[in-house]
Amino acid sequence: MKTPSVPKQTSQTIRNLINISVVVVAVVGAACAAAQGKDEPIQPIVPVKITNPAKVELGKKLFFDPRLSKSGFISCNSCHNLSMGGSDNLPTSIGDRWQQGPINSPTVLNSSLNFVQFWDGRAKDLQEQAGGPIANPKEMAFSHDLALEVLNSIPQYRAEFEKVYGNKELDIQLVTDAIAEFEKTLKTPNSRFDQWLKGSKKAITAEELKGYELFKNSGCVSCHNGEAVGGNSYQKMGVFEPYKTNNPALGRAEVSKQDADRFNFKVPTLRNVELTYPYFHDGAAKTLEEAVDIMGRLQLAKKFTPEETASIVAFLKTLTGEQPKLQLPILPPSQNNTPQPKPFD
Amino acid sequence: MKTPSVPKQTSQTIRNLINISVVVVAVVGAACAAAQGKDEPIQPIVPVKITNPAKVELGKKLFFDPRLSKSGFISCNSCHNLSMGGSDNLPTSIGDRWQQGPINSPTVLNSSLNFVQFWDGRAKDLQEQAGGPIANPKEMAFSHDLALEVLNSIPQYRAEFEKVYGNKELDIQLVTDAIAEFEKTLKTPNSRFDQWLKGSKKAITAEELKGYELFKNSGCVSCHNGEAVGGNSYQKMGVFEPYKTNNPALGRAEVSKQDADRFNFKVPTLRNVELTYPYFHDGAAKTLEEAVDIMGRLQLAKKFTPEETASIVAFLKTLTGEQPKLQLPILPPSQNNTPQPKPFD
Repeated sequence: MKTPSVPKQTSQTIRNLINISVVVVAVVGAACAAAQGKDEPIQPIVPVKITNPAKVELGKKLFFDPRLSKSGFISCNSCHNLSMGGSDNLPTSIGDRWQQGPINSPTVLNSSLNFVQFWDGRAKDLQEQAGGPIANPKEMAFSHDLALEVLNSIPQYRAEFEKVYGNKELDIQLVTDAIAEFEKTLKTPNSRFDQWLKGSKKAITAEELKGYELFKNSGCVSCHNGEAVGGNSYQKMGVFEPYKTNNPALGRAEVSKQDADRFNFKVPTLRNVELTYPYFHDGAAKTLEEAVDIMGRLQLAKKFTPEETASIVAFLKTLTGEQPKLQLPILPPSQNNTPQPKPFD
Repeated sequence: MKTPSVPKQTSQTIRNLINISVVVVAVVGAACAAAQGKDEPIQPIVPVKITNPAKVELGKKLFFDPRLSKSGFISCNSCHNLSMGGSDNLPTSIGDRWQQGPINSPTVLNSSLNFVQFWDGRAKDLQEQAGGPIANPKEMAFSHDLALEVLNSIPQYRAEFEKVYGNKELDIQLVTDAIAEFEKTLKTPNSRFDQWLKGSKKAITAEELKGYELFKNSGCVSCHNGEAVGGNSYQKMGVFEPYKTNNPALGRAEVSKQDADRFNFKVPTLRNVELTYPYFHDGAAKTLEEAVDIMGRLQLAKKFTPEETASIVAFLKTLTGEQPKLQLPILPPSQNNTPQPKPFD
């Protein structure tokens, strides 16, 4: 085979162009390594700085205290279990007297990053959220008044509230403020993906990176973005195909009373999604593969191949961050005048 | 008033006797301070030395893992809550599907000191005990086979078992061995009473000491003695008067099938009794005052005055030891092939 002849000048021009290209590629590459993550739609989790450790410690006790429930058996940690990704890993939760909860328990991890709380956004922040389950007859089935009576009867709690809030009268606002302050510390920085975002190229594998590229290019990032990889918008569940479920939750429409908001739910965070199975507001998707497949078809009109799904799942597992290192709190004991739990009546 | 005259020699003899007495009292006093506790019927808790931290860590994970229950909601820690004195502070426990348990959940703290396990002693040690609740249809309602299937499906658990036990096939003996190893670490040394036993006279108040003297002199120590202040014998509940209860438990007779053992129960430890309310096998005594009063009348034919009861209760509260400082375990996530929890069917 004859090598095609190239005029000498042209050949030189090509060589020059190649040299320039090499330089350009090298410069762009270096810039990418330095600025990697800067232009990405996902940002690394900013670690928490605890400014009021006494309030956090009080909030932790309250979070773990089942005496905020009628039965004396259910605490915040029952359904937002910090040993299990801040969730209960059940389709829907178990409430007082084993009632079946209406909706999948969202993770408390990184929940301070959500723009609103609950799937339907009916609470504006963590403090407003925290009061809900205590008084919900299907969850902790207590009342705010009884919860306060319990706490007020326990001298160690009274002393801790006084230390944190001065001599304000104990009310539910202080209780939920302390719980929220604890919950704000439950961030999970330094996932492998965050390490990659910060420039550590080897933190994720080629397969995981391929999954991330698919996640970006297929449109998943249009809803799952930001520091929490979600949690910052409402979106309709079932855009291109309707989502079939027996779960009666209507989402945002229950708050706004607008028919247009039917099936609009807060987009959940994908941080630690490896730990927060099962998925969706009804907990119907048991595996990440199933969740990715359904999301692709219903939200993006895209049928991922099994290989694509596997890559995306591999990427999603890089979002597992450092779990909060918590010393189990020791709760102050009830006193003779503390209202008794009533588990069976 | 005239001072009675004493012959000179007699006076000298008395002075000598007084001097000798002072010396004797001083010597005995010093001996008491050094040997205080040596001859007491209660011994200080010997702190635990952890020799196999990997096994303890594995056991801790299993202790906190609700996937050892059918529902995926109940763990060992649900009824032996290490935030609450290793108990659930309920008269009887809540089991699968909110079934009411048959008996008060005994504390897991210092339970390695019990001569047998369960109120009726049907398990010889902690390992044998640990398998019970997992498979009890009224408690965790699972089966050993399903628990093993869950654990076997989770690579992180498999790796931890291999690290601790080599490449033995996973069976329930290994699971309960690890749980028991963790439970053996749950001792609570250095209570104020133990400090007093070791010679620190100021560790308890005069009122608390008075309570201890009453506790000894009234006969409470004949059953509540040793390192655990109990846990080392069976005794009949209701010696001088019958104990009235709606609880159907027969105690030791259910194991021995001997009528003479009816209402014989293992004497519970009084360590941390301030934290392990309510009291007795049926959890019917809500307060320590009530428990002391009933014990006095039924077991000792003794009606304590309210002041005596208060002193004994004050003493009992000096038995609260240092609670185990535990970092909340992070449980390895389920995999796609992990059997699903079945909370509602």
